[in-house]
Amino acid sequence: MSNDDGVEARGLKHLIEIAKNFGNVFVVAPERGQSGKSHAISLVEPLRVRRIEMGDKFNFIAVNGSPVDCVKLAINQFLPRKPDLMLSGINHGSNSAISVIYSGTMGAAIEASLYGIPAIGFSVQDHSKNANFDLVDENAGIIIKDVLENGLPHQVSLNINFPVVDKKNFNGYKVCSQTKGVWKEDYDKRFDPYGGEYYWLTGEFSNQEKNNQGSDEWALKNNYAAIVPIKIDFTEYNTIEILKSRLNF
Amino acid sequence: MSNDDGVEARGLKHLIEIAKNFGNVFVVAPERGQSGKSHAISLVEPLRVRRIEMGDKFNFIAVNGSPVDCVKLAINQFLPRKPDLMLSGINHGSNSAISVIYSGTMGAAIEASLYGIPAIGFSVQDHSKNANFDLVDENAGIIIKDVLENGLPHQVSLNINFPVVDKKNFNGYKVCSQTKGVWKEDYDKRFDPYGGEYYWLTGEFSNQEKNNQGSDEWALKNNYAAIVPIKIDFTEYNTIEILKSRLNF
Repeated sequence: MSNDDGVEARGLKHLIEIAKNFGNVFVVAPERGQSGKSHAISLVEPLRVRRIEMGDKFNFIAVNGSPVDCVKLAINQFLPRKPDLMLSGINHGSNSAISVIYSGTMGAAIEASLYGIPAIGFSVQDHSKNANFDLVDENAGIIIKDVLENGLPHQVSLNINFPVVDKKNFNGYKVCSQTKGVWKEDYDKRFDPYGGEYYWLTGEFSNQEKNNQGSDEWALKNNYAAIVPIKIDFTEYNTIEILKSRLNF
Repeated sequence: MSNDDGVEARGLKHLIEIAKNFGNVFVVAPERGQSGKSHAISLVEPLRVRRIEMGDKFNFIAVNGSPVDCVKLAINQFLPRKPDLMLSGINHGSNSAISVIYSGTMGAAIEASLYGIPAIGFSVQDHSKNANFDLVDENAGIIIKDVLENGLPHQVSLNINFPVVDKKNFNGYKVCSQTKGVWKEDYDKRFDPYGGEYYWLTGEFSNQEKNNQGSDEWALKNNYAAIVPIKIDFTEYNTIEILKSRLNF
């Protein structure tokens, strides 16, 4: 198990409690918050590890690196065997639509899937420290059980996002595609006490397919938890033929 | 234009010289090396910028962030208009196969493509500071000219990797798919003078389709420059139906 909010995050503690129902838990997670760290790996800074005592029930290691560093180190150095399942999260904040590409939570899940480990990332659409995880607590088990029993296709992971909604209005799961769209940035430009300029990233998501009922944003807006199966082939196959004919290569 | 090796990298200087033949150049690149930073964005550290004087011919700004931060800031704050083309690199080191997902060079190109800007990342299979860029210098213009004239499909970028080979043995371009495979890590575990353990990431690529003549690794091994068109939809569509029927959602 890993996450991108770091070893102290409430979301991780919730996911540990969920996972304990299914077997032995081994956590390798970032020492500090790594939101937005995507699929980053540490090539310049060496990785330090800290073993956290948690009793006999499970292993817990903190790493001063990215979520992907945690997964690589876990597989190569710490795990006694290939795990049956990799879980990432629960992320404080949404990783739906194009946010999947910036997400450290999904970076970790995708990295595990590369090594043939079935992997699931869980996120809720509330990035506050006090995010409510009740819906995940109650519903994650269905998916975890299914994936443990039936697996996932080779090198496929699941990106699962939960809406912020009361239990009584929650409509259950919906299997979706990644919503097409882009973040529209609006940097907040400020000046420090010495006159130096600096920028904070802000922005909002611009949905390019608002009426697609098969998209994850539609599902979330309609009180479903969205499940998007994720692959790691970036190739745009249609464009191969276009370029071949156009360039004569 | 951006890169992931930082504003001082020789590869960036080569790409600037190539680009000058086609129009006005605006560079927004990382202050320091950002290899392996993938699609990371800065959410905790504010972004600082440094304007570098380069005369009238082009603009040059250094940012203390990731390649994707550079592209977002450029589009939102610095560029006078949407550029006709975004170039990233020339990267010192290969970004073929699954390396595309860890690559800051391709992170920058993919980010630009999200905003509808045709984007090309250039890399050479030599990560040394003294990498030879002759093949790129001579051959990049063909692709840049084609993309300026004919564009690319919406939100598609190109990942172009050059082999390390003499000019006389170079076989030209080949349009390819991303080679299936995974990095096999072999962490180098060391101890500091105070007994503390730390780890350096090392490893080698394990090719899962060595005989696929349409893959970028095959092309590079056979002295071609590999062009892979890249999209940003992570959805594994085949798995949507599998999960729907299996889970009854």
